[in-house]
Amino acid sequence: MSDADAPLSATPRTRLRRMSQKGRGDRGALFEVLRAGLVCHLGALVDGCPMVVPTVYGFDTTHLFLHGSVASRSLTTDAEVCVTVTVVDGLVLARSVFEHGVNYRSAMVYGTPRRVVDAEEKLYGLRLLTEHVAPGQWDYTRAPNGRELAATALLALPLAEASVKTRSGPPDDGVGPDAALGLWAGELPLVATWQQPLTDPALPATVAVPAHVAARAGTRADRS
Amino acid sequence: MSDADAPLSATPRTRLRRMSQKGRGDRGALFEVLRAGLVCHLGALVDGCPMVVPTVYGFDTTHLFLHGSVASRSLTTDAEVCVTVTVVDGLVLARSVFEHGVNYRSAMVYGTPRRVVDAEEKLYGLRLLTEHVAPGQWDYTRAPNGRELAATALLALPLAEASVKTRSGPPDDGVGPDAALGLWAGELPLVATWQQPLTDPALPATVAVPAHVAARAGTRADRS
Repeated sequence: MSDADAPLSATPRTRLRRMSQKGRGDRGALFEVLRAGLVCHLGALVDGCPMVVPTVYGFDTTHLFLHGSVASRSLTTDAEVCVTVTVVDGLVLARSVFEHGVNYRSAMVYGTPRRVVDAEEKLYGLRLLTEHVAPGQWDYTRAPNGRELAATALLALPLAEASVKTRSGPPDDGVGPDAALGLWAGELPLVATWQQPLTDPALPATVAVPAHVAARAGTRADRS
Repeated sequence: MSDADAPLSATPRTRLRRMSQKGRGDRGALFEVLRAGLVCHLGALVDGCPMVVPTVYGFDTTHLFLHGSVASRSLTTDAEVCVTVTVVDGLVLARSVFEHGVNYRSAMVYGTPRRVVDAEEKLYGLRLLTEHVAPGQWDYTRAPNGRELAATALLALPLAEASVKTRSGPPDDGVGPDAALGLWAGELPLVATWQQPLTDPALPATVAVPAHVAARAGTRADRS
């Protein structure tokens, strides 16, 4: 945890070449996006070509954790990967097609993942991952047994090289010649909301929805 | 459009090695996911490493269209890319941590993109892209001028090699030893909904929200 307060590194690829006003280099911004996101997109080289796979994640102050089957081809540990978390907040509807855009929060993390083999660290990482996606479920449900742990690959990716990009607010063509067109312009916000839980039909009707699940219904998924 | 009805190719990487019950090879399933999605994650090789970038897209029956600045490093045309569209439908809350999962619809498209240079085809692709994200805006707003078209790179990726994976329904541990634990299990659905449009503060109050924008408020973003 020693480098938890270190600034994010600015390598050439994270020193954003374009739209630098959208780039933020501080760790607080990174964790805001990681907290708000639900799934990430893992980009890895498979047979020499990029492969982009959606997957859930967890994190602490120094690492991002990813998991999957031990047979998964994208869970590589011998080369760099790029993990991107994106939260879409809405559309930017401008006066011209060219100025249209998306309001979003996005983080890209680069690095070479390490395969976690220590059983205690594996449980630690899987707990972070489960609790990020489904808070309360780790303590409520049955923990992984030895066979399940062996079948699960867990990768730890250092939160050392990363960039954060966000955009918010109205379109940028409110001043300029297009403003005279008299067209409506603005934002169309998008919000993802947890719905009422659906009980497994295999379950007896006597089993109540636990409070930590019921409490999420109606709340925003992006924890903002 | 000649190969619009051709089956998706099953190369080794799209002939899913794992969870083949989740894989669907037909083109109808691909278009369902492309219609439901809003942004994709483009995975490209940049300086030898994968880079995963969120971006909007459009499509017709034969191609996926991506756009960006002509200076964008991820809009490569000299190597294969992987474009992944993911719609998260909710959480699968099982009786054991191991059986937890996500209900989702996802499509992965592989191929080498072609840069669109013909002005007419560029307008065609940009129109598809705009109308996918913001239906009605292409005709309502000012079309791209020559300078804007020159500053915009448009890539066309053939919809030839692709795979679709989906998961829906309750957890899989409703039968088996964990069912005896007496724990609640089920799904926690997630729905993304368009909110009321926010008018650009730079706009005079006399400009009304156009009907095609107002009509989206309250509707699901995944067009399902």
